[in-house]
Amino acid sequence: MEAIVIRRGETSPTVAERPRPDPGPGEVLVRTLRVGVDGTDREVIEGSHGGFPEGEDELVLGHEAVGVVESAEGTVFEEGDVVVPTVRRPPAEGPNEYFERGEPDMAPPDECVERGIDGAHGFMAEYFTSPAEYLVPVPDELAEWGFLVEPVSISEKAIEHASASRSAFDWNAETGLVLGNGSLGLLTLAMLESAGYDRTYCLGRRDRPDPTIDIIEELDGTYIDSRQTPVSEIPEAHEPMDFVYEATGYARHAFETIDALAPNGVGALLGVPEPWEFEIDGGRLHKEFVMNNKALVGSVNSNVSHFESAVETLADLPEWLFDDLVTGVHGLDDYEAAFADGDETTIKTAVQFSQI
Amino acid sequence: MEAIVIRRGETSPTVAERPRPDPGPGEVLVRTLRVGVDGTDREVIEGSHGGFPEGEDELVLGHEAVGVVESAEGTVFEEGDVVVPTVRRPPAEGPNEYFERGEPDMAPPDECVERGIDGAHGFMAEYFTSPAEYLVPVPDELAEWGFLVEPVSISEKAIEHASASRSAFDWNAETGLVLGNGSLGLLTLAMLESAGYDRTYCLGRRDRPDPTIDIIEELDGTYIDSRQTPVSEIPEAHEPMDFVYEATGYARHAFETIDALAPNGVGALLGVPEPWEFEIDGGRLHKEFVMNNKALVGSVNSNVSHFESAVETLADLPEWLFDDLVTGVHGLDDYEAAFADGDETTIKTAVQFSQI
Repeated sequence: MEAIVIRRGETSPTVAERPRPDPGPGEVLVRTLRVGVDGTDREVIEGSHGGFPEGEDELVLGHEAVGVVESAEGTVFEEGDVVVPTVRRPPAEGPNEYFERGEPDMAPPDECVERGIDGAHGFMAEYFTSPAEYLVPVPDELAEWGFLVEPVSISEKAIEHASASRSAFDWNAETGLVLGNGSLGLLTLAMLESAGYDRTYCLGRRDRPDPTIDIIEELDGTYIDSRQTPVSEIPEAHEPMDFVYEATGYARHAFETIDALAPNGVGALLGVPEPWEFEIDGGRLHKEFVMNNKALVGSVNSNVSHFESAVETLADLPEWLFDDLVTGVHGLDDYEAAFADGDETTIKTAVQFSQI
Repeated sequence: MEAIVIRRGETSPTVAERPRPDPGPGEVLVRTLRVGVDGTDREVIEGSHGGFPEGEDELVLGHEAVGVVESAEGTVFEEGDVVVPTVRRPPAEGPNEYFERGEPDMAPPDECVERGIDGAHGFMAEYFTSPAEYLVPVPDELAEWGFLVEPVSISEKAIEHASASRSAFDWNAETGLVLGNGSLGLLTLAMLESAGYDRTYCLGRRDRPDPTIDIIEELDGTYIDSRQTPVSEIPEAHEPMDFVYEATGYARHAFETIDALAPNGVGALLGVPEPWEFEIDGGRLHKEFVMNNKALVGSVNSNVSHFESAVETLADLPEWLFDDLVTGVHGLDDYEAAFADGDETTIKTAVQFSQI
């Protein structure tokens, strides 16, 4: 079968011929429909994030997959079921406490592998296998957009953890700010809107006309240009934010979030930046954090419960959003286009391996 | 009656003659037993924190009080009940949503006053009045140590909010670190011990022999000298911490806490430092925060529920701790001694106004 791989020493992906995988005990064989591409894939390709499976020199890419059960192998699934796989798997030593209690998303980085990212092959192949416990069913009518379940699940977890951090008092989030107008930021903005936030904002650094600004405004959000309004000044320029979701990976934003928050607000941090030293007014930020009961929550990955929530969330999002967000679905004959860093008309791309 | 006040333009407290207060509707008249002194009082005295009541030039000090109901005024209390008052009261405009729902601790600083600290007279007087709703009953046998209810309530809230931030997953805190070996740090260390933490640590910068180090070790905690082991290096020198409680007000500690935490750990920040610019490796800290699902929670003040928990907590703490911790209880004839910054044999002091 054909697969899209990155090889050691190379800086762009290749189509490789690989053996079709055989499902082991408890595993399901899945025929791949579509696999999304995101910033993490680009980091894996350029070598700044993740790594190859132990002893191998190529990695099958892709962690945002949707497929159809080809062979259910006596599991709870049936042939033809549309499914989405989770990303984390036990490390070589076998399952640890995090996997045993269904919370692999809480495993430290060295106590798991991540399919398509770090130490395990991904889903960008005509077929993949997965233990049934790591597959989440998706309604047939969402099959086309099922590759968005994984990114939405990332935000489900971040929002769940941020809300938990405010559960010891009566917290009523009315204002939400998303830092970053990439596809994850835009999906999260849509989630905040559908969760009933009164006013939402999304930060980017694009000039109009721009398709991401169009989506922000179509979602009833307010676009904030970071070149005109630094994150720290957002409360003054707009209003303080009960919830801030950081998806830029720009390290200054992690600390500026403290200023952007309203009293009792919480910031969810999701970016994974490189080391970068800079100066902050640590005294002022520390005091601000304490005197206004603010919180910051770091969040990575997601587990089956978040995938299940993401399926429900996606079912509620408007069809126009998917049409506008997914700017390219490319076949194997045209896979390079899915990875192209693209002009500013590209928002979200996927590779299509087969059709339902 | 006599009261201990700080006057505008002065840098040390004075005993002043003030009228005995008359309880208004719903208020109770309380005869003061003891009032504790803490770092906040010293900041109020030196003028770096809080402020005078509107239009006045002197402030009655003291926010850590215990007293006996002198006149119950038809409230739920009876004469002779031992009570501890909470600290926050509605601002001049009247009660807002935070007070209405019993969470004045979550009010932004400009939506409340704080008795003995900011904008309202404190409890360092022979008598004080308080609405019954802001008084918490204390068993008679705790009357002597009742002035410790307020500081313990501060940690009850911080621990509650920190635990809430970890409630979206299965969090089992085994290791706890307290930054700061002042009286609040030592009380919190005792709380972690009695909450069942397997191993606890307390950071200070004192040479042995030292009474705070003796208390740390008597509590089965490990003393860490910050001059030998910076906070960031504690995981390597000892072990990573599931919970860190910051009570130093040293702004670098707020950010070094991220390094001291174990994966999935949470830091509670309580210090209130002055502005101070310094350099951090913001990129590395941001990534560490995200990849290991860490959290930081700022916490200030406490509400009635935290005072009630604190009463239960105090009842469980060993008597020797109070004896060792409270190094001086001074009468009005000797009140200056309670405020003296003291040598290193002073841990916690109080002023005694009357006896039960």
